[in-house]
Amino acid sequence: MLGNFSYCNPTKLYFGKGSLSFLEEELKKYGQNVLLIYGGGSIKRNGIYDEVLNILQKAGKTVAEVAGVMPNPTIHKLNEGVAVARKHNTDLILAVGGGSVCDYAKALSVSVHYHGDPWEKYYIRFEEPDCETLPVGCVLTMAGTGSEMNAGAVITNPEQKLKIGHVFADEKIMPRFSVLDPTYTLTLPKYQMTAGIYDIFNHICEQYFSGEDDNTSDYISEGLMRSVIHASRIANKDPQDYEARSNLMWTATWALNTLVSKGKSTDWMVHMLGQAVGALTDATHGMTLAAVSLPYYRYILPYGVAKFKRFAVNVWGVFPENKTDREIAEEGLAAMEGWMKELGLVLHIGELGATAEMIPDIVKATLILDGGYKVLTKDEVAFILKESL
Amino acid sequence: MLGNFSYCNPTKLYFGKGSLSFLEEELKKYGQNVLLIYGGGSIKRNGIYDEVLNILQKAGKTVAEVAGVMPNPTIHKLNEGVAVARKHNTDLILAVGGGSVCDYAKALSVSVHYHGDPWEKYYIRFEEPDCETLPVGCVLTMAGTGSEMNAGAVITNPEQKLKIGHVFADEKIMPRFSVLDPTYTLTLPKYQMTAGIYDIFNHICEQYFSGEDDNTSDYISEGLMRSVIHASRIANKDPQDYEARSNLMWTATWALNTLVSKGKSTDWMVHMLGQAVGALTDATHGMTLAAVSLPYYRYILPYGVAKFKRFAVNVWGVFPENKTDREIAEEGLAAMEGWMKELGLVLHIGELGATAEMIPDIVKATLILDGGYKVLTKDEVAFILKESL
Repeated sequence: MLGNFSYCNPTKLYFGKGSLSFLEEELKKYGQNVLLIYGGGSIKRNGIYDEVLNILQKAGKTVAEVAGVMPNPTIHKLNEGVAVARKHNTDLILAVGGGSVCDYAKALSVSVHYHGDPWEKYYIRFEEPDCETLPVGCVLTMAGTGSEMNAGAVITNPEQKLKIGHVFADEKIMPRFSVLDPTYTLTLPKYQMTAGIYDIFNHICEQYFSGEDDNTSDYISEGLMRSVIHASRIANKDPQDYEARSNLMWTATWALNTLVSKGKSTDWMVHMLGQAVGALTDATHGMTLAAVSLPYYRYILPYGVAKFKRFAVNVWGVFPENKTDREIAEEGLAAMEGWMKELGLVLHIGELGATAEMIPDIVKATLILDGGYKVLTKDEVAFILKESL
Repeated sequence: MLGNFSYCNPTKLYFGKGSLSFLEEELKKYGQNVLLIYGGGSIKRNGIYDEVLNILQKAGKTVAEVAGVMPNPTIHKLNEGVAVARKHNTDLILAVGGGSVCDYAKALSVSVHYHGDPWEKYYIRFEEPDCETLPVGCVLTMAGTGSEMNAGAVITNPEQKLKIGHVFADEKIMPRFSVLDPTYTLTLPKYQMTAGIYDIFNHICEQYFSGEDDNTSDYISEGLMRSVIHASRIANKDPQDYEARSNLMWTATWALNTLVSKGKSTDWMVHMLGQAVGALTDATHGMTLAAVSLPYYRYILPYGVAKFKRFAVNVWGVFPENKTDREIAEEGLAAMEGWMKELGLVLHIGELGATAEMIPDIVKATLILDGGYKVLTKDEVAFILKESL
């Protein structure tokens, strides 16, 4: 049954080649002091940094910077940014980068005016902000996380070996605007593109593989998954194909802006497993998801045969004639495995630096959620991780 | 190719049984004077009027009313509402009803502070408002038009025999909030429910049957269409099935809140034909669309075989083996015709009061758009209308 819910996603999106030109108009809505956030410096090499800075300067803004936001942004980096943002009297946080940079900007948004420990408040106690929050704008340079149109922010605590996401309740935490220019994703290394593609696909899976109903969200999910599969095959052959990359960028946004989870339960165990692997290995997020997915889905398949069967038929075009439900369901996962191999996704956590010795620590770092077809025990988590090695 | 676009739909939606309880919280955001808009009085019979008025009174609001908004709201009724709204110093327009009532509220929103003729400005010259606009909230009692989450407003001019829709550019014209309680749709006569179902389906078709690309919007459209078909069959057998009615309500919103048209061209000729029939006969909107659809789609099929083939396979599950593209495409429309008959949709404009003698006037009232697979001539419009008789 489509359960009760509320929906509000006010983020304004500017999509397409040259859409950075809308930044000028957006900047007029905010105060003088802009805090520019970015990652390892690729935006300096590809010219996006100069383009953005040029627009900020023309708009007469006073700009401070936090550079070097890492792929799995840490609580230490967050605390560093809080200090800079306070000193700058920041009016607008402008994130230029991929999902980690956007996540970081949102974590900053709720932390700058909070005077306790943000890790304890938002990532251990999962509280909502009760302080002023800062508006965030994004210029996205990588498709995958969906961070450009949601209120989520994943932060890593390396000492505690924890990587935790908090999806904030207030739509004010969502970026006020996001610039989505697919040409910005064209310079991304193929490994990162492919990891992003799987991140998109898995976001949809996480919301799809839960519940027993034929609700609209599942139908939209199937459409999005088919679009990802179609576009990813084109992008894999030719990463410079603008049409494929633009469709991937657009599916990424809709895969995780709350739409396809509306009115239904969700799973998210692949992310819990992948994030635990990421906390221990610092591996690329999308690849950690890819590496644990098949062992996880094959393990839970018997508990959700009807949905895995539907997935096989509606997403992968498996012909159901003269086959048992279980056979159809398994054929769907085999088709998915074929696609994953075709894209060159990492299928073993061993390739990401995980070892058999690390498994107890990864198990410890894995948060067990109860929305999927089977609530895992710690032993089952260990089994799935061993299967993923 | 996914073309350039911007996207922003800030409407806050409250979905599910009992969601009217959120109205109280929303009312706090607006001023003292609420203008309550409703239709023929069904909300008085089913108790929704009392529920809403009770919440307004508890919130201490001063309420004026515009009752009797008709299914195809006229420019005269609009002018009447403008006078009431001005006298009341309206702070919030609250629409309680179906799409016509919501459309009317939005037309009012842009007209109250405009001191010329709104018909001339918005429906003949298609200008954007340059005056203050009033916030609109909706409590929806019928699923179909999608008016609850878009900036469109259709108004009829009976003297000029014109029924014209204007989709305003500014997202401020979209309802600020909409309450979507599927139980409110359960008391609707079956004829109205079925007309609404076809309106939903056709909104998706209008955006789908245009362009040559495999873009994400088309994949989302296919998911939504499958959901409508699935849920409509259940609702047709048992209109009291809450799950089916809730899925229909949710697809209605997404069928016309701009999402599935992003980055692509659109058709909208079925609406142009249907609205012209409606302007002459005052027939139920969804039924006018149903009655012209098959003759229209069969006429344009040869110009868009690839898309009609995709529609057949991805939406209707037509097996493509050993068939020509044309045969597959036609089988898709045959499947659609079967579904339309199953639901009891009106398949001839003659049943809606149109006559052969009216056809020249209907042709005259039909606005010809150029987004579909074939730009029609006036003669072709006449041919399609004759086929629809």
